[in-house]
Amino acid sequence: MNGAQALLQALVEGGLETCFANPGTSEMQLVYEIGRTNDIRSVLCLQENTVTGAADGYARMAGKPALTLLHVGSGFANGIANLQNAARANSSMVNVVGANATYHQRNFPEHEFIHGKIVDLARTVSHWAQEAKSASDLAVLGALAARDARSANGKICTVIAPTDCHWDPAIAPPAPAEPIPGIRVSAESIRQIAALLTNGKKTGIMLGSRALHGEGLEWAGRIAAKTGADLMGETFPSRLARGEGRPPVPLVPYFAEMALKFFEPYEQLILVGAQLPVVTFAYQNRPVIKVPQNCQVIVLATTEHDILGALADLARSTGAVSQPTFRQARSKTAPPTGPLTDDAIGQSVAMLLPENAILVDEGCTMGAAIFQRTQQARAHDYLYGVCGGAIGGGLPLSLGAAVACPNRQVVTLQADGSGMYSVQALWSLAKEHADVVIILLKNDHYAILEIELARVRDGDINEKMQSMMTLQNPTLDWVKIAEGHGMSASRATTAEQFHQHLERALAEKGPHLIEAQVVQNIQPMIDLVRKTK
Amino acid sequence: MNGAQALLQALVEGGLETCFANPGTSEMQLVYEIGRTNDIRSVLCLQENTVTGAADGYARMAGKPALTLLHVGSGFANGIANLQNAARANSSMVNVVGANATYHQRNFPEHEFIHGKIVDLARTVSHWAQEAKSASDLAVLGALAARDARSANGKICTVIAPTDCHWDPAIAPPAPAEPIPGIRVSAESIRQIAALLTNGKKTGIMLGSRALHGEGLEWAGRIAAKTGADLMGETFPSRLARGEGRPPVPLVPYFAEMALKFFEPYEQLILVGAQLPVVTFAYQNRPVIKVPQNCQVIVLATTEHDILGALADLARSTGAVSQPTFRQARSKTAPPTGPLTDDAIGQSVAMLLPENAILVDEGCTMGAAIFQRTQQARAHDYLYGVCGGAIGGGLPLSLGAAVACPNRQVVTLQADGSGMYSVQALWSLAKEHADVVIILLKNDHYAILEIELARVRDGDINEKMQSMMTLQNPTLDWVKIAEGHGMSASRATTAEQFHQHLERALAEKGPHLIEAQVVQNIQPMIDLVRKTK
Repeated sequence: MNGAQALLQALVEGGLETCFANPGTSEMQLVYEIGRTNDIRSVLCLQENTVTGAADGYARMAGKPALTLLHVGSGFANGIANLQNAARANSSMVNVVGANATYHQRNFPEHEFIHGKIVDLARTVSHWAQEAKSASDLAVLGALAARDARSANGKICTVIAPTDCHWDPAIAPPAPAEPIPGIRVSAESIRQIAALLTNGKKTGIMLGSRALHGEGLEWAGRIAAKTGADLMGETFPSRLARGEGRPPVPLVPYFAEMALKFFEPYEQLILVGAQLPVVTFAYQNRPVIKVPQNCQVIVLATTEHDILGALADLARSTGAVSQPTFRQARSKTAPPTGPLTDDAIGQSVAMLLPENAILVDEGCTMGAAIFQRTQQARAHDYLYGVCGGAIGGGLPLSLGAAVACPNRQVVTLQADGSGMYSVQALWSLAKEHADVVIILLKNDHYAILEIELARVRDGDINEKMQSMMTLQNPTLDWVKIAEGHGMSASRATTAEQFHQHLERALAEKGPHLIEAQVVQNIQPMIDLVRKTK
Repeated sequence: MNGAQALLQALVEGGLETCFANPGTSEMQLVYEIGRTNDIRSVLCLQENTVTGAADGYARMAGKPALTLLHVGSGFANGIANLQNAARANSSMVNVVGANATYHQRNFPEHEFIHGKIVDLARTVSHWAQEAKSASDLAVLGALAARDARSANGKICTVIAPTDCHWDPAIAPPAPAEPIPGIRVSAESIRQIAALLTNGKKTGIMLGSRALHGEGLEWAGRIAAKTGADLMGETFPSRLARGEGRPPVPLVPYFAEMALKFFEPYEQLILVGAQLPVVTFAYQNRPVIKVPQNCQVIVLATTEHDILGALADLARSTGAVSQPTFRQARSKTAPPTGPLTDDAIGQSVAMLLPENAILVDEGCTMGAAIFQRTQQARAHDYLYGVCGGAIGGGLPLSLGAAVACPNRQVVTLQADGSGMYSVQALWSLAKEHADVVIILLKNDHYAILEIELARVRDGDINEKMQSMMTLQNPTLDWVKIAEGHGMSASRATTAEQFHQHLERALAEKGPHLIEAQVVQNIQPMIDLVRKTK
C-alpha cells in the first residue's frame, strides 16, 4: 500500500463519505485512489471557495465532516474565505492539500509559498494543520483529522500531503479512534443557572451553534416557557430551526445601537453556545459590546461543551422537560402584487417554501425583509450565508446542503454583489442536479457599503466614491451568467412574475435561478444609521 | 489630517497613481479619501483575485506599482493566488488591507483571522507586511511601502490598516524617499563572466525577469551574437519582448525530460535574472533539476541586482555594444482553414496581432502551439499568465495591462478551466472599456490533469477519475458568461470563422470575447510523457 491508499483508507474508516474537490498536479495520486473507490463520492468544483463553502454547508446539514481536496498553497488560499465562515459556523471538515515532494521544496525561494509555507497559511484558518513527513505519517494524520473533525463542535483539520508521501510505501493506518465528546457542563453550573432563571430578574437566553438546531431549540423553548425567560439567537446563526411549529427566536441585531436597545430590558443574559455579542466592526466613538453594562452575562455552555446535554440537564433542573411552549403559526397571505420589493419576495417565499426546506441566506441588505416574512413559513432550516463575514458563502453552502440532503428542497437568497465572489458554484449545482432554487436578489449595488459610507461620513458622496460601490455600467445579467454555467434561469421584474417563477421552479426538480430585479430603498437605513451616529 | 488622509498623501507622493479595489466596511474612510482626489484612479473589481492579478499586470507593463485596496483577512486571502504569481513575476505593488479597530480585535476568538492574524496571512506572500499601530504609523508604513515597491525588482508590500488608524488624527507623512536601486554587479564578476564567454565552451545565457524586457534583451542579443552563446528564457517569463525584429529566445521546457535534452549540448550556463531551472513538481524517480550535472552554472545577476546595468557592462566587456544580432523575421502565411485547432488559432493570431500588442497567455495545454506560431508575429510583449503556477491569472493580468497601456491592443489566450478561477475580471474589463480581445480556448477539460494522471498512472483511468477533470455535463457557455458580465462575445467553431471574428474584434475598440471551441488531441502528449517515464 502506498501513502495515498493509506490516507484514503484512514479517511474512509474515519467516516468521511463525500469529497468536494478541485485537484491539481500534486493530487493526481489521490484522484486516482478516490476514482477507484465507491466509498467516497466526489464533487468537482471549479474554484476552491466553492469547495470549502460546500463542505461548510454539508457539515451544517449532515452533521458530519466532508473531505476537501485542494491544490497546494494557492488552491488552499482560494478557499480561505469560506473556511473563515465555516470556522465561525462551527462546521468541521478535513482538508487535504497537496504539496511538492518533501525533497524538492528546498529548491524554491523561501517566499514561494506555493511550495512551502502552506502550513503557515493553513494555520491561520484551521484548528490544526500539519504537513506529513512520510507516507505512513500521512495516514496517521488522516486518521487524526477524521477523529477530530467528527468530535463535538467541529474542527477544521488540514493535512498537507507532499507528493512523495503519496507514492512512497506506507504501513496501514491506525484503526479509527472514537470522536471526542463535548465537555460536560457540571451539575453545579446547571444548578446555579437554574437558580438564576428563578431569581425574578428579566432574563435572556442567547442561543448559538447547536443550541439553535432542532433538538437544542426544543429544550430551550421549554426552559423559556417554564421560567419566563426570552429566547434570542446569535446574529449570524449557522443553522436555525424555524417556521411553523418551532419556538420563534429573534436574532440579535447587527448594529450596536439597535442591539443595545434590543438588550435594554434585560438584567441577565445566559449564553448557550453563543459568544458575547460584539459588533462586527468598530465605529468611531461608538460602543463595540452589544450588551449594556448593567446586564450580567453568564455562560451555560461554549461551543466546546456538550450543548444539547447542557440544555437537557437545565430543562430537568428547571422542571421544564414536558413544558408546552409557544410555537410559531403559519401566516395566511395572498400572493404579492405590484413592484418587486424585498418584502414582496418574502411574501412569496413565506407562502411557497415547502415543508422541511433549507433556506440559505446571503441576501445581505435585501435579505432582512425576507427573513422577517419567512418566520411564518412552513417548518424549515435556515442557514446564514456568511457566518464569518466573508462574502461569497451562499452559493457554495447551497451546494453542500443539497449534497447532504438530496431529498430536501434548498431555496437560496443570494444578493448580486456577494454572489459574484463564488459564482463558479453555479456549475457544480448544475452538474450535480442539485435541487436548489436560487433567488438572485439584484439591486446593482454594494448597498451595505453605501450604508457604511453614510455611517462614517455625512453627505458629499461623489460619483467616484459611488463608482467604487456600484455594479453598473455594465449591469450583470444573471440569467445569462446562470445559463452560461449550464443552469436554467428566468427573470422577474414584478411581484406577480416572481411568484409564478418561484412556484414553477419549486415544482420542478433540479437547480434554477430566478433573477429578481429588486426595488429597494436604502434611504431609511441610511437615515437611521446617520441619526444614531 | 486623519490617518486615512495621511496614508493617501504618503502613497500619492510616493508615486502611486492607480488603485485596484474591492473595498468593504473597514475601508470606507479610504474610499472616501480616494473619491476626493484626482491623483489616484480607481478600478473596481468584483473579487479580490482580480484586484491582485490586475496589479500584477499593471506592474509588468507600467514598470511601477499599483495600489490595491482589500477588505480584511478574507479579502486578502481571495487575492493570494495572484499575489503568488506577482511575486514570481517580480511585480511590485502596495496592498492596503483594512482591519478592525486595534482596540476591538481582542474581542474575537484567536482563530478568527478576519479580525486578527491578517499579518500572519499577509506575510506568507508579501515581501513585508506590517500592521499600523496608530494613525501616524499608518502614514509612515504607506511611505515605506511606496518606496520599497518602487525599488529595483519589485516588492509586494502589505500595510494592514485598522479602522481607528483611519479616523484618528495623524501627523503628515514623511517626505517620500528615493527608491533603492538594484545591487550593482561588480566589475570583477563582469570580467570573469566575459572570460567564460570566450573560453570556447558551449554556453547558454538564460534570461529571466527584466533581462527579457526590451532593453535587456537587446543587450543580451548583442552579447550572444558576439560570443556565439545561445540565448534562452525562463519557462514562465513575466514579460518577454518578441516577434518581428526581436532576438528570438526559446524558453526552457516545462517537463524535466525535455529540459534535460534542451540543455544537453551546454557546458556552461549563465543565469541573468533567472533562477536555477527546476521542475515545478517532482515526479517519482525522476530528476528535479533541469540542467545536466556536467553543465556548470554561473550567476551574472539575480533579481536583486541591477540586471540591465549588468548586461550593459557585460556587453562593453565583451565588445558587443554595437554588435549586429539576429532578429526575428515575420512569417507570411495565409489565413487558416478547416478545423479550429490550436495551431490554426496560432496562425490567425500570428497574422493579425497588431504592432506593439500585449499578448497575455494562460492558454495552458492549448497555448503551446499558439506560442510557437506567434514567434513570427509583429513585435509584441508577451506576458505569461501564471508565473507562480497559481491558475487564474490571465483575465486579471489583461485588465492591469490594459489600464497601464490604454493605447496598446491586448490579446489574451485564456483556457476555459483556468479562466473560471477569475471569471469576475470580465466585468471590470467591460466597465473600463479595456481594449482587450479574449480568445477563450475551450476544450471542456482540465487537459493538463489528464496528462499528469497519465504521468503517474498507466491505463485504467475510469469514469469517476474523468469526472474530476472534465468540464462537461454541463459544458460552459462562454458567450453567455461574457455577455452576462456585460461584454460582447461571439463563438467560432471553424478556423475561417475564428479568423473573421478575430479580425473584426481587433478592428473595434473595447473588450470582446471569442469562444473558440478547440479541436485538441492530447494523446501525443500523453504518449510522450508515458514514454519518458
